[in-house]
Amino acid sequence: MNIGIVGITGSVGQEMLNCIESLDLKFNTLKLFASEKSVGKKINFMKKIYIIESVHEKSFDNLDVVLFAVESSFSKKYFNYAKNSNCLVIDNSSAFRMNDNYPLIIPEINSELINNNNGLIANPNCSTILMNVSLWQIYKKFGIERIVVSTYQAASGAGIKGLEELENQNKEYCLTKNISSKNVFGKQYVWNVFSHNSVINLQNGYNEEELKMINETRKIFNDQKIKISVTCIRVPVFRAHSESINITLKNKATEKEIRDILNQTQGIEIMDDREKNNFPEPIKASEKHNIIVGRIRADLGQEKDKGYELFISGDQILKGAALNAVQILKLYQQKYF
Amino acid sequence: MNIGIVGITGSVGQEMLNCIESLDLKFNTLKLFASEKSVGKKINFMKKIYIIESVHEKSFDNLDVVLFAVESSFSKKYFNYAKNSNCLVIDNSSAFRMNDNYPLIIPEINSELINNNNGLIANPNCSTILMNVSLWQIYKKFGIERIVVSTYQAASGAGIKGLEELENQNKEYCLTKNISSKNVFGKQYVWNVFSHNSVINLQNGYNEEELKMINETRKIFNDQKIKISVTCIRVPVFRAHSESINITLKNKATEKEIRDILNQTQGIEIMDDREKNNFPEPIKASEKHNIIVGRIRADLGQEKDKGYELFISGDQILKGAALNAVQILKLYQQKYF
Repeated sequence: MNIGIVGITGSVGQEMLNCIESLDLKFNTLKLFASEKSVGKKINFMKKIYIIESVHEKSFDNLDVVLFAVESSFSKKYFNYAKNSNCLVIDNSSAFRMNDNYPLIIPEINSELINNNNGLIANPNCSTILMNVSLWQIYKKFGIERIVVSTYQAASGAGIKGLEELENQNKEYCLTKNISSKNVFGKQYVWNVFSHNSVINLQNGYNEEELKMINETRKIFNDQKIKISVTCIRVPVFRAHSESINITLKNKATEKEIRDILNQTQGIEIMDDREKNNFPEPIKASEKHNIIVGRIRADLGQEKDKGYELFISGDQILKGAALNAVQILKLYQQKYF
Repeated sequence: MNIGIVGITGSVGQEMLNCIESLDLKFNTLKLFASEKSVGKKINFMKKIYIIESVHEKSFDNLDVVLFAVESSFSKKYFNYAKNSNCLVIDNSSAFRMNDNYPLIIPEINSELINNNNGLIANPNCSTILMNVSLWQIYKKFGIERIVVSTYQAASGAGIKGLEELENQNKEYCLTKNISSKNVFGKQYVWNVFSHNSVINLQNGYNEEELKMINETRKIFNDQKIKISVTCIRVPVFRAHSESINITLKNKATEKEIRDILNQTQGIEIMDDREKNNFPEPIKASEKHNIIVGRIRADLGQEKDKGYELFISGDQILKGAALNAVQILKLYQQKYF
């Protein structure tokens, strides 16, 4: 299989490369693409040197699959090139996620849709992936009527520049307590918490991140009726996202049944030690493939056996982006190569 | 009126003093108490010098009201002294909050109970106060069936030592990236998020902070049936707490009606600019008397006109503790002096 990655200099692109190695994905050719300013730079990967190329209309001619880790506008443009080259795209942007022509895939949930692609498979939003993997088996077995979720999102969601701004603000704080680096978020991030910086729908007051979590979950669960209430907040954490999740089941389940199903859920690790106060934390989830799930408890605010609360942390660059995309790639390879 | 403050060297005690000044509370005598190691130290307050005293059985003999800003065990002990001295206690600890003999007061909500004290008025938990002030007028007008809340709590809730530990961890991070100051929280706090460090009920999995928010809200709203689902999380913020709040109304209300009622709610300030992404943040709420309320929106996950979402930030040392206590003191003075 001949593969490519577009956006190799970004944090997601870099992790895609790492995931290709850690998932032991076999390939013949690997091509790495980035914007003009990085063209010609060398990348050392698995003892071979790769030279970064720019994307042009024929870039994907000899590739079977290309992973996109670029902004929506670039995904749209480059998808046309890939179509003409008959090269499958696995796209991390939001450009095609809600387009009915293309499947939106989380391997633990709906890998069967991999066949129904029209040349593109969309990779879901990071916060959506973390929540959906954690809830899917509960959903399948007992049904979920409603989800209320509040997020604790890391700087990494805003890319390398977001991460750097948080670091720079802290350096400024340490030296002078005077914070002036505000280009990315437009505000003080260190020692603060703020509503997610995506564009807000002025009519309904929801930001894009929140609407993604609602709409993408409905598409992935194939359930237009599931009720989702979501608030997305950024916290001064570098890498992993956390989520406080409250669910209302359709059918009753005991806490033991919920724990049993979570124990069998692929892609998660349970960390739930009440005695030692050992629960999911973003620093524990950073650079891990599994999402950490804990604070599992019957909701005192709902009818017995109908409501549960969870707290989860997951690496948004890995399972929230790069790892999920490479898992799709691996599934595709197993099926067609 | 002769007044005293016990626990004057703590962060809440210090702010009680500031609130006495900012609320322009008149008094004849003011006595300041702390533990043995601070006895004899001088405190400069409103151009007078006060000398810190230790607490003994007769300490409150000539006082009308004393504010306690100490741990529960000390509140219990000193309340006996105050009772014998016929001195009213306003207690910031959790020792008597859920005791039916004593009122649990937020002046914006249930100031009428100030008469029904048996020598002690309890000051509610910080997170409870912030949520209750924000929701009370909505509750009164439309009824609230259910609340789902997730908190973003600051280090200040763990006192001066908690604040110092977060600062020290950051200094260590800046110098060596190696974090070893973990005496208070037992874990990395800087660049991290974790489940609230209060004791966990091993049976139901809720921590004390969460149970306080449930039980105290029910007592303050005088509604044993209100459903409350709560998850308490600490974030690396110094001073103010934030909360993501989702409510289900008993009776329908339009978004305009909710905004109108919030506009008339005492003790809050609305900050809700969707165009500029200007919403409540803990650094904006720090050292402010008002709680900031924003992200007010009709919940897309509930029946039309039945569900709303809010995000709030409030200074937990001020309205969450010291200010609320001094407001009670002022009410009491206006009534009886």
